[in-house]
Amino acid sequence: MAEYPPAMRELIEALRLLPSVGPRGAERLALFLLQQPEALSERLARAVYDARKKITRCPECGNFAEDGGLCSICQDPSRDRTVWCVVEQANDILQLEKAGTFRGLYHVLGGRLSPLDGIGPEQLNIDKLFKRVEEQGPSEIILALGADVEGETTAHYLAPKLKELGVKVSQPARGLSAAGGLAYTDSVTLGYALDGRSEL
Amino acid sequence: MAEYPPAMRELIEALRLLPSVGPRGAERLALFLLQQPEALSERLARAVYDARKKITRCPECGNFAEDGGLCSICQDPSRDRTVWCVVEQANDILQLEKAGTFRGLYHVLGGRLSPLDGIGPEQLNIDKLFKRVEEQGPSEIILALGADVEGETTAHYLAPKLKELGVKVSQPARGLSAAGGLAYTDSVTLGYALDGRSEL
Repeated sequence: MAEYPPAMRELIEALRLLPSVGPRGAERLALFLLQQPEALSERLARAVYDARKKITRCPECGNFAEDGGLCSICQDPSRDRTVWCVVEQANDILQLEKAGTFRGLYHVLGGRLSPLDGIGPEQLNIDKLFKRVEEQGPSEIILALGADVEGETTAHYLAPKLKELGVKVSQPARGLSAAGGLAYTDSVTLGYALDGRSEL
Repeated sequence: MAEYPPAMRELIEALRLLPSVGPRGAERLALFLLQQPEALSERLARAVYDARKKITRCPECGNFAEDGGLCSICQDPSRDRTVWCVVEQANDILQLEKAGTFRGLYHVLGGRLSPLDGIGPEQLNIDKLFKRVEEQGPSEIILALGADVEGETTAHYLAPKLKELGVKVSQPARGLSAAGGLAYTDSVTLGYALDGRSEL
């Protein structure tokens, strides 16, 4: 039986390593790339290679940075260095930056505590957080972690230890979405929203 | 507002050029690549680059080939050179090869006639087909094109011209799928299946 040439088979196999790309999807992507101008493949290959080579983690907070330097936020002299926001992943930072209300620094844990998956405090960027707190003494830390079991577990692990270090610890409000009516929320969220009601 | 580092933004933009990858999907793929070992990104970049550089079209039939040579089917001395199968795209060949019953040669048109999209005979690999037929004189050509309007149009354009050149022209049977009951087919296909019934 005839087969694709070796370079095509290798391309299909490499594309299959991407998340949610199956054998048919990988073949479709490969055929697309072969039918496009060579410049597109060159640009994609270069971007994939360069990103992995150049992008490093900020040695201070764990955010994305380039070539081993501090991230753009840690470098920014206009940021408030007394309020920090602890997040699970570096991409959470972009979400928070889009909201535009937080002007402090960040700390990326790189995940959340999940004993069932073998993820304990040692697997996360937690020691560095405590060390940073001791050295720099921020006044408040916001634990902006997921509102699920693992996120809550992580917050409950961190909060008392951070308080011991003399830091005020808070978490973002839980409640209704900005554009969401009661019909579009779940009962747990609605419970939070009622508990945290504010007077008009 | 903070942004991703330039190399990350370029990776997201390059990934967005792929079919059915939107802004969120591109970001998700980029984050995946950054979290995997560097070897994965290197392999993917290399595969994308190499495939586009190495894979060429067979100068004879238009199938995928490597480094400008003939494809594996045209090179195979065991193939029957008197029966050819005309297909729309090079990847159709793999489908036909999987079926395993056809042992002749192929000819890839590179598309089908679609006047509304500005695709006429000059845009397709049709002149080369006639030239090959004149030079090599196959006895039969199977037009394995799509069973839709453009596929039928293309077949009706090619058939009389090929017959003029003294070739027998045929098309694959239309009918029920191998494992499909009457409930799973459409009325047009059922019409074909009844017209083409065979005695038991």
